[in-house]
Amino acid sequence: MRVLGVDPGLTRCGLGVVDVAANRTATLVGVGVVGSSHEQTLDARLLVIANAVDQWLDAFKPDVLAIERVFAQTNLSTVMGVAQVSGVVMVAAARRGIPVALHTPSEVKAAVTGNGRADKASVTAMVTRLLRLHEPPRPADAADALALAIAHAWRSGGAVDAGTPGTTAAQKLWREAAGKAKIHKNKENPGAAWR
Amino acid sequence: MRVLGVDPGLTRCGLGVVDVAANRTATLVGVGVVGSSHEQTLDARLLVIANAVDQWLDAFKPDVLAIERVFAQTNLSTVMGVAQVSGVVMVAAARRGIPVALHTPSEVKAAVTGNGRADKASVTAMVTRLLRLHEPPRPADAADALALAIAHAWRSGGAVDAGTPGTTAAQKLWREAAGKAKIHKNKENPGAAWR
Repeated sequence: MRVLGVDPGLTRCGLGVVDVAANRTATLVGVGVVGSSHEQTLDARLLVIANAVDQWLDAFKPDVLAIERVFAQTNLSTVMGVAQVSGVVMVAAARRGIPVALHTPSEVKAAVTGNGRADKASVTAMVTRLLRLHEPPRPADAADALALAIAHAWRSGGAVDAGTPGTTAAQKLWREAAGKAKIHKNKENPGAAWR
Repeated sequence: MRVLGVDPGLTRCGLGVVDVAANRTATLVGVGVVGSSHEQTLDARLLVIANAVDQWLDAFKPDVLAIERVFAQTNLSTVMGVAQVSGVVMVAAARRGIPVALHTPSEVKAAVTGNGRADKASVTAMVTRLLRLHEPPRPADAADALALAIAHAWRSGGAVDAGTPGTTAAQKLWREAAGKAKIHKNKENPGAAWR
């Protein structure tokens, strides 16, 4: 399954393409960030992002587009731009008949790190290990888009239940990686570490 | 000047095209509402609206698209959908090189009725008079899109200053209409009537 993960944003919109095999092994296909400047008008900024997403969809032909579910409760100063970008991104997929999946940040963090409150460094560390990269993906803020893509494939590809007795090779790798990964304390909740 | 006014919404998105002459006379060209159902997925709903806006832009070829400026502070339950639709609408215009103008609801109400806190009935009554219609435009919730289009043309087309001595024919008509229009109390602020 090929997933395009999109971390929507007006100033920086993260894009990450991942192939995920039936055994849960995830492979990096493409990663990037498309940005737009505060000096442009809002419609021009949205068009820059729309054009980039069109190009990524046509170049990588993902089976599904996974995008962060935006809540009005989050950061009010940026949420409107995030919502506008997410609308533009969803239409680009819909025009091509590519299904769109929405996941909350905590769903993504839980799927990738095992902790729905994991901090950004923890997510990046796990994405780096899961994709078997030698160093964190660049640009740094594209890691969330990759995490979204991996999380979608895992959540949709079958029961991702830690209590299930059967463990595939990739699940084993994932648990080993999770065990080896340096434990980062959650800034918002210092008592919470990875489970 | 031909203006396409868009009152963005996921369930009902109002569209209104108005031609406004140099003397401020406004003429109705087209009006409608494109809706999408709760039963559809979010991306499918946005695509329905995107396709409709594409058709309106191509059919009416407006000089400018005027859309409501969305604030995160307003109704939290619908604001995300409104923002997503507004992003889709703005990109549709930007793709065609059609400039996009953003106006707040109070700017529109003030331009059309003289009162930034006018209620919906007051706005509809003024739109009906300003467009010289025999009855309120249908569908009823497209009146806001028409108000937006008229307000944009007036706000951008020169100084709309009630204190200016020189009064064009249309300004005179506008003031007469405002004087004749039935005074509706603002529900949110019952003490406020039209000035």
